[in-house]
Amino acid sequence: MKKRGKFITFEGSEGAGKTTQINLLKEFLSARNIEVITTREPGGTPLAEKLREIIKHFQGSEIVSDKTELLLMEAARIQHVQNVIEVALNDGKWVICDRFYDSTTAYQGYGRKMDLDFIRQLNAFAVGETVPDLTIYFDLPLEQGFERTRKRYADKEVFDRFESQKIDFYRRIEQGFKDIVRNNNERVKLIDASLSIEEVHQQICRLVNEQF
Amino acid sequence: MKKRGKFITFEGSEGAGKTTQINLLKEFLSARNIEVITTREPGGTPLAEKLREIIKHFQGSEIVSDKTELLLMEAARIQHVQNVIEVALNDGKWVICDRFYDSTTAYQGYGRKMDLDFIRQLNAFAVGETVPDLTIYFDLPLEQGFERTRKRYADKEVFDRFESQKIDFYRRIEQGFKDIVRNNNERVKLIDASLSIEEVHQQICRLVNEQF
Repeated sequence: MKKRGKFITFEGSEGAGKTTQINLLKEFLSARNIEVITTREPGGTPLAEKLREIIKHFQGSEIVSDKTELLLMEAARIQHVQNVIEVALNDGKWVICDRFYDSTTAYQGYGRKMDLDFIRQLNAFAVGETVPDLTIYFDLPLEQGFERTRKRYADKEVFDRFESQKIDFYRRIEQGFKDIVRNNNERVKLIDASLSIEEVHQQICRLVNEQF
Repeated sequence: MKKRGKFITFEGSEGAGKTTQINLLKEFLSARNIEVITTREPGGTPLAEKLREIIKHFQGSEIVSDKTELLLMEAARIQHVQNVIEVALNDGKWVICDRFYDSTTAYQGYGRKMDLDFIRQLNAFAVGETVPDLTIYFDLPLEQGFERTRKRYADKEVFDRFESQKIDFYRRIEQGFKDIVRNNNERVKLIDASLSIEEVHQQICRLVNEQF
């Protein structure tokens, strides 16, 4: 039987540099002969991607309740955990996931002010034993994240539902992630995402090295 | 402001005669100048119907977890309650719904042996204050239900996921509904569905008359 792989999740606002760093970490691990899969939430399986699509784009024809959004996120997560993440980990592969259940706590719990205890229960129901070995939170001042994101979407007319929300919403999410870091200080590590790509990568490598 | 309508749900196995009786009750109420809408779960809104379709037919390409099924059912319910049932009730219409949250307790809770307390919380989260004024449970010996259903599907090759389950599963569901009747005896009323269409209709009318 193969040694179970490690499960690493990346959290933080858009524009924080997660995608770039996921690719760099994948290279770093591959150079050590570790098989790595990278994935993302919401999504990750055909059914989950379908739900992601529903969450983001059904708005036009029907009011989508925040409650509905929460349950679809968790349903997508169940499929993702069972059919992708667990399969890879059991096969000895490492899994790097762009956003996981801490995003639900931060966005739906703190951002949309839904009941945190109920979300905790839903998260536990969805992931079971599949808790990340390491979660890296990309800490970046809100203004800097917005600046980076604005450039990215400069030529896009329509921002999706998440990006069109207001500043207070993002402040609450930021506070949420800081609480998550504080309340899970063994698993969740904060890194300074305002530094250069190379410096951020070095911070991540130091944290990942503790997983060997 | 219009007087809020009444919310009546029909529960019971397939083959118990719910559809026939919903139509008869609708006629009965319409004759009293009550505006009635009839609807069903899972489904009832475009998004909810989409989820119903996913629940029933995604099986071919991906293993759908029982947990996923449960959350998609509840997500569909949230949309249905908010965008259809509440709108109609507030508009003074009566709503007759073929299956509602008691089905989740019976099928997912008792049938699939998922945690009943968690399902109770999910149901409460999904429906909020929109609890049925009256729920009618169609009591029919399992064998009779199967016999009626067999005739209905005689020319169909493929039964859907729910219908292809085994007899023990249906026994547990039957037990679930009996527990639900006993534990909610103010709201949920059992009728004998083995009687003639006219006799069943009379039982239902007697229960509904208490709602005026």
